[in-house]
Amino acid sequence: MTRERIYLFDTTLRDGQQTPGVDFSVEDKIAIAAMLDEFGLDYVEGGYPGANPTDTKFFEKKRTEDAAFVAFGMTKRAGVSVSNDPGLAALLQSKSDALCFVAKSWDYHVAVALGCTNEENLDSIDQTVKAAIAAGKEAMIDCEHFFDGYKANPDYALACARTAYEAGARWVVLCDTNGGTQPSEVRDIVAAVIAAGVPGTHLGIHAHNDTGQAVANSLAAVEAGVRQIQGTLNGIGERCGNANLVTIIPTLVLKPAFAERFATSIDEERLQGLTRLSHAFDELLNRSPDHQMPYVGASAFATKAGIHASALLKDPRTYEHVPPETVGNLRKVMVSDQGGKSNFINALKRRGIVVSKDDPKLDQLIGIVKDREASGYAYEGADASFELLARRTLGSVPDFFKVESFRVMVERRFDANGNLKTVSEAVVKLSIDGKETMSVAEGHGPVNALDIALRKDLGKYQREIADLELADYKVRILNGGTEAITRVLIESTDATGARWWTVGVSDNIIDASFQALMDSIVYKLLKNRDQAGKVAAE
Amino acid sequence: MTRERIYLFDTTLRDGQQTPGVDFSVEDKIAIAAMLDEFGLDYVEGGYPGANPTDTKFFEKKRTEDAAFVAFGMTKRAGVSVSNDPGLAALLQSKSDALCFVAKSWDYHVAVALGCTNEENLDSIDQTVKAAIAAGKEAMIDCEHFFDGYKANPDYALACARTAYEAGARWVVLCDTNGGTQPSEVRDIVAAVIAAGVPGTHLGIHAHNDTGQAVANSLAAVEAGVRQIQGTLNGIGERCGNANLVTIIPTLVLKPAFAERFATSIDEERLQGLTRLSHAFDELLNRSPDHQMPYVGASAFATKAGIHASALLKDPRTYEHVPPETVGNLRKVMVSDQGGKSNFINALKRRGIVVSKDDPKLDQLIGIVKDREASGYAYEGADASFELLARRTLGSVPDFFKVESFRVMVERRFDANGNLKTVSEAVVKLSIDGKETMSVAEGHGPVNALDIALRKDLGKYQREIADLELADYKVRILNGGTEAITRVLIESTDATGARWWTVGVSDNIIDASFQALMDSIVYKLLKNRDQAGKVAAE
Repeated sequence: MTRERIYLFDTTLRDGQQTPGVDFSVEDKIAIAAMLDEFGLDYVEGGYPGANPTDTKFFEKKRTEDAAFVAFGMTKRAGVSVSNDPGLAALLQSKSDALCFVAKSWDYHVAVALGCTNEENLDSIDQTVKAAIAAGKEAMIDCEHFFDGYKANPDYALACARTAYEAGARWVVLCDTNGGTQPSEVRDIVAAVIAAGVPGTHLGIHAHNDTGQAVANSLAAVEAGVRQIQGTLNGIGERCGNANLVTIIPTLVLKPAFAERFATSIDEERLQGLTRLSHAFDELLNRSPDHQMPYVGASAFATKAGIHASALLKDPRTYEHVPPETVGNLRKVMVSDQGGKSNFINALKRRGIVVSKDDPKLDQLIGIVKDREASGYAYEGADASFELLARRTLGSVPDFFKVESFRVMVERRFDANGNLKTVSEAVVKLSIDGKETMSVAEGHGPVNALDIALRKDLGKYQREIADLELADYKVRILNGGTEAITRVLIESTDATGARWWTVGVSDNIIDASFQALMDSIVYKLLKNRDQAGKVAAE
Repeated sequence: MTRERIYLFDTTLRDGQQTPGVDFSVEDKIAIAAMLDEFGLDYVEGGYPGANPTDTKFFEKKRTEDAAFVAFGMTKRAGVSVSNDPGLAALLQSKSDALCFVAKSWDYHVAVALGCTNEENLDSIDQTVKAAIAAGKEAMIDCEHFFDGYKANPDYALACARTAYEAGARWVVLCDTNGGTQPSEVRDIVAAVIAAGVPGTHLGIHAHNDTGQAVANSLAAVEAGVRQIQGTLNGIGERCGNANLVTIIPTLVLKPAFAERFATSIDEERLQGLTRLSHAFDELLNRSPDHQMPYVGASAFATKAGIHASALLKDPRTYEHVPPETVGNLRKVMVSDQGGKSNFINALKRRGIVVSKDDPKLDQLIGIVKDREASGYAYEGADASFELLARRTLGSVPDFFKVESFRVMVERRFDANGNLKTVSEAVVKLSIDGKETMSVAEGHGPVNALDIALRKDLGKYQREIADLELADYKVRILNGGTEAITRVLIESTDATGARWWTVGVSDNIIDASFQALMDSIVYKLLKNRDQAGKVAAE
């Protein structure tokens, strides 16, 4: 059976830029366009040339190799001719393969926002599409507020869609601009559009997540006949975000309800790059990935419960809707005080540590982990600290260096000019192979000062930790009061792109931070040796 | 037209506890149950008494006033009688109104996980429901893996549902345990269950978010006839989370497609507490709220400067799917917020501070608050700090005392006996009426030492703060790295039973803590004077 083609349209660089806190530079846009192009999407919308200097510069060149490169803009203004509209001229001249024009399709907006007649708006749609085609570009019309417009005046909304299609638009995109439309309404209204003469092979859907259903609305539109989906990486976008392509794509590829009927540009091999794509994009935005994101989140295939975990080990399909490797993700059975012996053995095996079920050291390790979790440690979120603890208990970890003592001081006083000043300073005394070194550093706060001092002079190991970076630092107070138990979690990375998490717990936040920092450094040194060992063995 | 009733079932305390990183204490559970009960949900599922000490203790008492208090557990084991199953006995004896039993409904799991026959499993369902009813409890059956089970063996899945219903279960809950089912499949399978003889008025839906459609699946089930929805606060839960009740509830109440047909326990007035509920829960989990969460996120009604923003000011319904105040949220136009002023006047009035709309000091206060919130302060959760700031800006607050300087030191070293020891010490220099005092104290960590030193000698005010206690101390890191901005929130109480919250923000955790501690003490002194004033006036 031949499957129908669904086209994937990315608007991360255009609508995604409306996300509060997101502002792409030209360099960011070039990097993201390359990521999208390489992953294999059909369309990459880059922005609005002419509207701001960044987008104008971005459209000086074509920025994709395989994907169609799309410029966004408005349909021709009413009352001027196509050749006299400077905004339209900029679009026609941009180095794009396709043009996507936003057009009003809610009569209320035509009156209030455009201040022209309904007929003039239809005329703008018609002439704009024809001008784009004449300039050798593929033309698309984003029908803004289409669903709300249809509810208010179905005839006019349909007239807008039909006008675009009849003028030659490759795609007529139905936009749920305010994001409040329900899937059942999407299904009904898409059916009405098709019945009115615009075939589904020329229809697109552009959904927003204001009721948490952008993905469902996009897929409902596909079921109703639409063949293009617009969305963004990780669902960024104005308000609650756009439809998340990272969630939609694997559902189209892996779920029989869609995979049996439809084909996309993303085959099963490309799909394995999905988790990497999603995380690389967060990296570029400098934010922590959402652990619970469908398919690609660090928790998407994580199991905590004892019963679920042991069933999962017998047969993964008992508690997994798809195999994690299909999207480039990993199964994660978490070590926690809810877990039994088989959890531990498996968690160790994944880290290359083989231990027999009857080994008394295994019982000892489980005992230590349970005691520590009872006192506030959380190893499920700190894999590197868990691995160090396991290696120390079951075998051994070299004493690379020893911290003889440290001292951290925070002082707040008025300086000579009467300005209030806070200074944080840390002193660390280390011994490496019996040789002592002392380092001192100032920092933004005591933990930062301690971190800098600790990594300032590691003697013969100093070069090895040059690429060690702290990516995230989290503090959790486990009970009330300033004398409370504090848990610190640190996320580290290095030049290889590896990430690892370490934990420290104490009634003293400095002490807790110190433990997590130490584990991070020791793990890094151990990791370097493992890699060196692997390379040497090859 | 009478509307049909939809019942809301919260499983935050049971299934939500499967979230990686979430571990509720008994006190947490008591606090969350009270929040859910007060908000007005129909059912609050508290956990699994007998399975772990926390849940056993939690079920020693009934923890809700209005909501039905639900205990969770497994159906009777095959091969033993109802009276000989200790797990079941613990449930029947728990202080709950209702019992929710998980039962296998996929024949594959019956064989692999239970190791009993299909008939024995049906018999367990039947007898367990009857035992619960005999013990005076409402009975529910969670049909685990119902949708996957139905696809594998529809007859057996239907037999499980029908057995539960015929035994007298108030609710037969269809669970998409692995979270991979699509909305169209939910619709078809729910219709098949109803056709098989279990009426929709006795059916519930339990959805997971593994394809980003837990909300859509829940609502699709309602459209297909189901009348109970299970979900969690903010969508916490195993892997990608459970259906998010915070998203589902406003859609049911506000969207005509549902509101015209269905009623819930949440009326429009209660709905206004939704944003507060969602944020209070995140606060308790000590995590940052998701800005993009539908309805309640800080960005859910935010518009970046531009065309949308100016249209929004003309008529909000142009770019808002519902009015933000219906869910207790706020419109946020990131240029100039017109609606802000009346919000401030109201917040001040509630604290007994009267200010006129034209007072230039009010604009000054709004400016300061906006600047500070942009740099990380959160006055929403720190009413005492907000009141102090407002009083200082609009009027004046006495300079009770001045902190000339402080110094905090944390030292870790080996003592004379070779034991590792960490000591925290703080020195504070104060001046009161021109007279200087110095205090020094040790503490559990640097913040505790600073707190003790600061309150050790407040001169003539010392007696006044004798009953001041710090009830809670929370730290949130606002961005990555050990040099990150840190926000500290402190909750204080005194002998009158009053509670107040103060905030501090800095890249130095000691500094941030100091600000919040200072605000707490000054607020206490001010509060004593207000009370004295009130008593004198009476």
